[in-house]
Amino acid sequence: MIRTALTDLLGIDAPLVGFNRSPAVVAEVSKAGGLGVLAVSAYSPAELDAQLTWIEEQVQGSPYGVDLLVPGNTTAGDPSDLLASLRAQIPDQHREFIAGLLRRYDIPEEASAEGRVMSEFAANLDPSRVAPLLDVVFSHRIALFANALGVPPPEVVARARSAGVVVASLVGKPEHARRQLDTGVDVLVAQGTEAGGHTGTIASTVLTPEIVDLAGDVPVLAAGGIATGRQMAAALALGAAGVWCGSVWLSSHEDITPEVVKRKFLAATSSDTLRSTTRTGKPARQLRSSWHDEWERAGSPEPLPMPLQPLLVGEAWDRIDAAASAGHAKAAELESFFIGQVVGGFTELRPAGEIARSLVADCEKQIEVLAGLRH
Amino acid sequence: MIRTALTDLLGIDAPLVGFNRSPAVVAEVSKAGGLGVLAVSAYSPAELDAQLTWIEEQVQGSPYGVDLLVPGNTTAGDPSDLLASLRAQIPDQHREFIAGLLRRYDIPEEASAEGRVMSEFAANLDPSRVAPLLDVVFSHRIALFANALGVPPPEVVARARSAGVVVASLVGKPEHARRQLDTGVDVLVAQGTEAGGHTGTIASTVLTPEIVDLAGDVPVLAAGGIATGRQMAAALALGAAGVWCGSVWLSSHEDITPEVVKRKFLAATSSDTLRSTTRTGKPARQLRSSWHDEWERAGSPEPLPMPLQPLLVGEAWDRIDAAASAGHAKAAELESFFIGQVVGGFTELRPAGEIARSLVADCEKQIEVLAGLRH
Repeated sequence: MIRTALTDLLGIDAPLVGFNRSPAVVAEVSKAGGLGVLAVSAYSPAELDAQLTWIEEQVQGSPYGVDLLVPGNTTAGDPSDLLASLRAQIPDQHREFIAGLLRRYDIPEEASAEGRVMSEFAANLDPSRVAPLLDVVFSHRIALFANALGVPPPEVVARARSAGVVVASLVGKPEHARRQLDTGVDVLVAQGTEAGGHTGTIASTVLTPEIVDLAGDVPVLAAGGIATGRQMAAALALGAAGVWCGSVWLSSHEDITPEVVKRKFLAATSSDTLRSTTRTGKPARQLRSSWHDEWERAGSPEPLPMPLQPLLVGEAWDRIDAAASAGHAKAAELESFFIGQVVGGFTELRPAGEIARSLVADCEKQIEVLAGLRH
Repeated sequence: MIRTALTDLLGIDAPLVGFNRSPAVVAEVSKAGGLGVLAVSAYSPAELDAQLTWIEEQVQGSPYGVDLLVPGNTTAGDPSDLLASLRAQIPDQHREFIAGLLRRYDIPEEASAEGRVMSEFAANLDPSRVAPLLDVVFSHRIALFANALGVPPPEVVARARSAGVVVASLVGKPEHARRQLDTGVDVLVAQGTEAGGHTGTIASTVLTPEIVDLAGDVPVLAAGGIATGRQMAAALALGAAGVWCGSVWLSSHEDITPEVVKRKFLAATSSDTLRSTTRTGKPARQLRSSWHDEWERAGSPEPLPMPLQPLLVGEAWDRIDAAASAGHAKAAELESFFIGQVVGGFTELRPAGEIARSLVADCEKQIEVLAGLRH
């Protein structure tokens, strides 16, 4: 057993947070003594309600959390029909680029309704669509609410506080952390550049202790570069009160990412990721594929800012995912998803619970090895 | 005391290698129980001989090492006058860009003879100039020879072996490590992207354990992101047999980097570095300054490959350094040097020996803290 400020705060057995968009992964991490956190930005309210209910049945009282991208109110557009007014801001050049790309790769027209994950994610960038998601989230007995990007709105922090829910926020540089601490978050997640998804340029070895020193009594979780017990022990050595792992679960059986993408992950090396704005409009680490080559080609447009870029590419990605999963070779070339540099260590798909348990057990062993170096 | 495969191999007290171009820093690290390694690529043979003799007087029998960039034999040029033939390959557009930049920043014409560090570095890219440096190096009782870039030539490995000198090599990705292991190096230095100087894209949290797993019995040093005891403990947790620290010594009194640059380091944050090819022709992490803004401006030429780029900019840098050190404000704007992301943690200049001793002592303390988390 490893005891830290995080395990005390959340009443969990191991300082391991498992972030994933697959309810079964979240349940397995919580059942293994860590804290599963569901990424809920790509769910409709009804789906989300059903999934959180399912997770609660699985974990039988063990704590779990959710992660939601709560957009700020700065989005420029007509609030009466925000998505339409945002879509109208997408330049023709960009629409034609995407249409041409899908044509050249011969990607079929329609994705199945259940495959519309990235379109749903894009639609949820409308703040008016987030309110019902928040209502669902706070109607469940979540232990932690994480804000995926930027500073959580004060009303969300207040709502969490009154519900006894711990608020966590992701930061990629010290300035972010200062702003987050001012809003009263309970936990900071220091996300190093090696992480999958939205990430900055500072590596975990440097970022984690910087944020720890700034945060005072606020527990800091290290994120980015953590998929094994050695890496977990290193994060604790850097002063973190625990780890926030995302990418590692994409090597689990339970993860809902298309098999074709998971197979690409198993074949990838640690050099095969890049930070790119081509999916969300903000720099996010992902597996390099032909998709990125196409955007980098001379004459291709510059990616748009968030939220325009996900509105531009959301449907395209659902079509690519559907086609690739149906065995379409050129769609498979384009396939990619958010993943950190730890992808280079993926050798096989494993049960999520086994991944969680071995992370913690190997971390404990490594702490013992380290203690043995002293004479 | 921390005992690892590295301390056993080199007969040192602490698994700390201190890499720097200042003889006094090297001596202080070795005197503190680590291994000082002198970067000798910018020395003439006579200077180098004098400096190694001086270091040996200081360390009184404690081991130390040297690091040299041994160029391969692939350099395209006329070996009878390689530098002149290489210089002739530099396009006029590049010469004019540098001349215009120096003019716009009003940088005086001549650097003093003793300031010609970067020109000397560029000149030493001529393999025929390296042979005398190697003769000097192997006439001294060095304990370790490190090859700064790429695979060391087999004759250098053989020469080191017959002299009982440990050979170390820097690697930034697993493929590099495989090639280095094939040449029979004794120690691998896994240099993460957060490191100063020539560096790849993989962060230390991911790279260190990857290289450790590849290296088998060959000890691996972690480099990049290590300037404190916590970071040193984290490196050991990742499986490293020790750490290779470079940047941290640039916050020491003994470091010979111009004071104006050291002051810029003290003011910098961890976001203020970038990987750029504008100094050596290969990606090297350095402090961002107006120098980089000028290269990124529309219409500026693309940097040249190594060894042309250092030949193009070497003299310019000596002039910038000399002017900035003489109080020239616009030269100070351009000023920069190789430095890692740890620069954000620099708060004051300290004696190099104190830095070395506190790194090791704090690492030991942190290992104890970590052991205390287990219950």
